[in-house]
Amino acid sequence: MLRRVRPTADDRARMKEISSSILERIELLARSRGQDIKAILVGSVARDTWLAGDHDLDIFLGMPEGSDLGVALQLAREVAPVHEEKYAEHAYVHAFVDGFEVDLVPCYRVMDASMLKSAVDRTPFHTKYIASRIAGLEDDVLLLKQFMKGVGVYGSELKVGGFSGYLTELLILRYGSFSEVLLAASSWRPGEVIDLEGHARGEHQEPLVVVDPVDPSRNVAAALTLDRMFQFVAASRCFPQYPELEFFFPSCVKPLSDEELLMRIDERGSTLILIEFQAPSVVEDVLFPQLRKAEEAVKALLERSGFSLLRSDVGCYGDKAMLLFELDVSQLSRVARRMGPPVWEAEHLSRFLAAHPLTMSGPYIEGGRAVVELPRRYTSARDLLASEVNNLSLGKHLTEAVRRGHNIYVGRELAGIKEGDFRAFMTRYLKAETRIC
Amino acid sequence: MLRRVRPTADDRARMKEISSSILERIELLARSRGQDIKAILVGSVARDTWLAGDHDLDIFLGMPEGSDLGVALQLAREVAPVHEEKYAEHAYVHAFVDGFEVDLVPCYRVMDASMLKSAVDRTPFHTKYIASRIAGLEDDVLLLKQFMKGVGVYGSELKVGGFSGYLTELLILRYGSFSEVLLAASSWRPGEVIDLEGHARGEHQEPLVVVDPVDPSRNVAAALTLDRMFQFVAASRCFPQYPELEFFFPSCVKPLSDEELLMRIDERGSTLILIEFQAPSVVEDVLFPQLRKAEEAVKALLERSGFSLLRSDVGCYGDKAMLLFELDVSQLSRVARRMGPPVWEAEHLSRFLAAHPLTMSGPYIEGGRAVVELPRRYTSARDLLASEVNNLSLGKHLTEAVRRGHNIYVGRELAGIKEGDFRAFMTRYLKAETRIC
Repeated sequence: MLRRVRPTADDRARMKEISSSILERIELLARSRGQDIKAILVGSVARDTWLAGDHDLDIFLGMPEGSDLGVALQLAREVAPVHEEKYAEHAYVHAFVDGFEVDLVPCYRVMDASMLKSAVDRTPFHTKYIASRIAGLEDDVLLLKQFMKGVGVYGSELKVGGFSGYLTELLILRYGSFSEVLLAASSWRPGEVIDLEGHARGEHQEPLVVVDPVDPSRNVAAALTLDRMFQFVAASRCFPQYPELEFFFPSCVKPLSDEELLMRIDERGSTLILIEFQAPSVVEDVLFPQLRKAEEAVKALLERSGFSLLRSDVGCYGDKAMLLFELDVSQLSRVARRMGPPVWEAEHLSRFLAAHPLTMSGPYIEGGRAVVELPRRYTSARDLLASEVNNLSLGKHLTEAVRRGHNIYVGRELAGIKEGDFRAFMTRYLKAETRIC
Repeated sequence: MLRRVRPTADDRARMKEISSSILERIELLARSRGQDIKAILVGSVARDTWLAGDHDLDIFLGMPEGSDLGVALQLAREVAPVHEEKYAEHAYVHAFVDGFEVDLVPCYRVMDASMLKSAVDRTPFHTKYIASRIAGLEDDVLLLKQFMKGVGVYGSELKVGGFSGYLTELLILRYGSFSEVLLAASSWRPGEVIDLEGHARGEHQEPLVVVDPVDPSRNVAAALTLDRMFQFVAASRCFPQYPELEFFFPSCVKPLSDEELLMRIDERGSTLILIEFQAPSVVEDVLFPQLRKAEEAVKALLERSGFSLLRSDVGCYGDKAMLLFELDVSQLSRVARRMGPPVWEAEHLSRFLAAHPLTMSGPYIEGGRAVVELPRRYTSARDLLASEVNNLSLGKHLTEAVRRGHNIYVGRELAGIKEGDFRAFMTRYLKAETRIC
């Protein structure tokens, strides 16, 4: 097991070589220009807790407080001429160098974590904290990271909402080993607090609170969602009972064939509706929260129109973004009830009655309230969405993207989309299996 | 208007004659046998507040406290040889005498209303209370009774849940005239208390509380439902605006033709389901509460099976009883979600997972809880009811009646029932119009 997650001596040598060469290039270039920029290796490579097969290098370009980070950004661009620029709290450079994915991130060098200007400035302190304590526990970190990857809870990006590398390392420090983390996690409850340095301050509302040793006001697990947390808890309970390699390296889900997909759709007897459109060109950490908001907006529209939802999900494939909804029924009655005010609220009542001069039934009185029965505008969910989705407020990027053009697929039509990534998404959606014990 | 509700001199004479003759027959027969039974004329005839066209006579057979009421019952049987026996708190005789419907009700003669043994014993006190105060207001009572009849809120029997004759009289005494009652009622709210003698005691929870002047612990309006109360309130507001004869003498609702009924059913696009069975031979005041309970039991079955209800009703036609349900949809998805316990409740979770080894999807985690998706047993409401209605507990009389045999009609099949009373019931159900202002 460990052989698969632990980098070999060769891996390490190669990683060392690449990282040193980049660090050197930065310092040389900065020195030649008289710029006060220090290249700092951070992340799992600096902590020696990187998984075999990972080719990610995080290098920070530290500048004195108050200086112009644009100078470091420009330097990063020159160090890695082939790159794309990304944006978290500040702009940074993401480049491919000799088969490695390298992030070159400008930041301020502050003397103490309490002086932090941005989340990025904190990272070197994290590296220092872990590096000075993790000796002898690196393998446990690797096992835990790979376990979390395998069960689908690794990564603090918003698409995942799982555990960050730093969080994983803190858990190992707190509990002492991979198996002790699993044992402890088995009985976690929402509101669990882990405070390594015993200096918690403030109230956190998140499901898991891990006080940042270098910045006690921060919850390292802030990005972890309740469901990812308990997906990990569930897996932690299962693994000791069924200690299978599968937890670390799950076999790939085989996408359903056309026939299998159609069979599943028919068998469920539900109504699956997909809204698909060109994904706006923003990073996933921007896109996914917007997709989740759009999902909520469409759900609200469906529900207030009388359609009850079984489940929904969002995703991307290729350059497409998608919102998927599954309804209990495809077709509602034409007639729908509208509850009015209590009869004893005479003024409200008059306004209600005046607003509904024509009814299919009523007005009548039920529970003391006036009730009318009116025809629904939409009895089919497809018609509803086809007509109304352009009028929804789906957030800045998505409203535009959806209005620019979208496709609606219903039920068996979903089998018409052949792209592998979409089929994998549908397969995961339909199986929806999580290891729970 | 008054001419239509006020009995003519001829009517009165005839009523007088019939009632005197029956009273005499009772007293004679009792005296001849040495039985201490006093015949007492009660109800609206005794109070001179009966509506023209009414041919109801209420005569009580008063016995000394503690004696055997069976003696008076036997005497009543002999006075009216053609009769049926009914049962309220005690058995009584209901007979047709010269075109009049006569109730002969055994009761105790108590000296004071506070010594009452049963509701029936109270009636002579009511008659005395009203008769001594109503002079000059009889026409207002008649108008109010006819108004209440016309708008469908007259009658304290459980099928109606409306205003009793005595309650109507008390309202006239309290407010002084027909139009003052309507004016006052226009601004009633739930919890309204009317206390003519200012001696309310106890807490009543009913929507309208009218303290009984002869028995302050009793609410004369106890049988009035919230909806009937506000049906009256709504009509009271409408009448001064549109003072139409229609309120007193509504034109008959013309039953829908086959074509009209089918058109309405199609237009609603809902699923109407009728369960019809032989009505058990009990009086309406026993039957209707049982029908309402059965309605609730079937609604609960439908709802926990995933069907959402638009409306429902119960009724009788001929010797049939019926339960009518209207659903938003006829057909549900095969797949349904079942929410399990939170993942952190490890024991509940194990039991839940063990109980659902085979799923269509899941288990997965949502909101911290385990969720599975399973096939529904019934996706059609007709199948559900056809299989399960015999297993429901519908109360003593109805469970047996339903098991002895029932028919289920769905949607357009309802047009196959041609009986006028049923068609009138469906017409009222579909129009469901109440005068509301």
